[in-house]
Amino acid sequence: MNLILLHDDDFSSESLVSLCGRRLRHVLDVHRAEVGDSLRVGKLNGLMGEGRVLALTSNRLELEVRLDQQSPPALPLTLLLALPRPKMLKRVLQSVSSLGVKQIYLINSYRVEKSFWSSPLLQTEKLQEQLLLGLEQACDTILPEVHLRQRFKPFVEDELPQLAADTAAFVAHPVTDGACPSAHSGPTTLAIGPEGGFIPYEVEKLQECGFTPISLGRRILRVETAVPVLLSRFCP
Amino acid sequence: MNLILLHDDDFSSESLVSLCGRRLRHVLDVHRAEVGDSLRVGKLNGLMGEGRVLALTSNRLELEVRLDQQSPPALPLTLLLALPRPKMLKRVLQSVSSLGVKQIYLINSYRVEKSFWSSPLLQTEKLQEQLLLGLEQACDTILPEVHLRQRFKPFVEDELPQLAADTAAFVAHPVTDGACPSAHSGPTTLAIGPEGGFIPYEVEKLQECGFTPISLGRRILRVETAVPVLLSRFCP
Repeated sequence: MNLILLHDDDFSSESLVSLCGRRLRHVLDVHRAEVGDSLRVGKLNGLMGEGRVLALTSNRLELEVRLDQQSPPALPLTLLLALPRPKMLKRVLQSVSSLGVKQIYLINSYRVEKSFWSSPLLQTEKLQEQLLLGLEQACDTILPEVHLRQRFKPFVEDELPQLAADTAAFVAHPVTDGACPSAHSGPTTLAIGPEGGFIPYEVEKLQECGFTPISLGRRILRVETAVPVLLSRFCP
Repeated sequence: MNLILLHDDDFSSESLVSLCGRRLRHVLDVHRAEVGDSLRVGKLNGLMGEGRVLALTSNRLELEVRLDQQSPPALPLTLLLALPRPKMLKRVLQSVSSLGVKQIYLINSYRVEKSFWSSPLLQTEKLQEQLLLGLEQACDTILPEVHLRQRFKPFVEDELPQLAADTAAFVAHPVTDGACPSAHSGPTTLAIGPEGGFIPYEVEKLQECGFTPISLGRRILRVETAVPVLLSRFCP
């Protein structure tokens, strides 16, 4: 937790904040802060700044906050990710959030196990939990949006053309000759398949929608490795 | 397991292999192979190819193998990594191995917790277990070498100059103006600090040794995200 994220209802006045629970415990156990110390804070979906510790007990932390810094620039990239298995999804959401992606579509694919869609992790609150961990790690305040799209064809035919319009669109596909760009900036849409990859039909549908297949070479990477490796090519 | 790795003692003749244990279970449960099927195999530190299933029972798998393909090119990069906490080390070793790094130095740093050095995970066999998982994932056969260097100063002063000679050397350091190269090829030495980063003294020592500090920008990434993001910049 490199940044303490503040929510609206943490504020007792414009600059006074009172925290308990997980964030308090972290300040006690990891920061080992004392009265008078300054901590890095940020308001969810708002500005970042400093919080001076006014009071700290085992039950409550009071901070006087000054919020005057912008959060770091977002990555201008919309990520379409074939829904990974729940355990991996957690880590992927954290890393994607820490890398500054703000639009995440979890989509279906032939090789996504049906049972993944009934994971409790897909509840809005549970998804947010992982995204918040990513923001706290990276010192960012802007919560990414996660969209669940359990039907591939209607998503690609009806929604994606609009979504990917005016962006450079790529689909990571192991079996292609197109090399991954080594550095690409500007608005991007990036589709990453499940373990085993998208099936040819799905790649074709994405190509019809303007996506260029790109490959990272002969090595087959786990989704949790492939995602940061690919996103790195689109980071400034 | 995209590749079944074969060890010397799996071979009963030049082209006949008999497997049990984890690899047998994987072929039964995940590949669901049958007699006559072909599986992708590779000999540890040797060639890759196909294995035709001659016999398959719940106790034993017999393969006739033909090894005639080179493993994918290694990444010409030596990684110096401040020893991460054991749980994270596991995942990092797997991803580093899958990305083709062959020389890994786990080094000490002021912010590495002393207890990490007594983790059972640092036993040669346990380290290999994670590296093998990375090779099986990426379809590679060449086992990376892991070197443990528990004293920072003697390592940097006595060993590193020779190690980093004739390579481009970089140290990932959050607090620097030097941007990370977007694509760099050729022999490289890359140092990645612990959570919280190297301390200034350590960065200076690395700079004296010819390392250029590079930063990924304002975002602070977890080691398991930073490693693939950084390595991506050095992959072809």
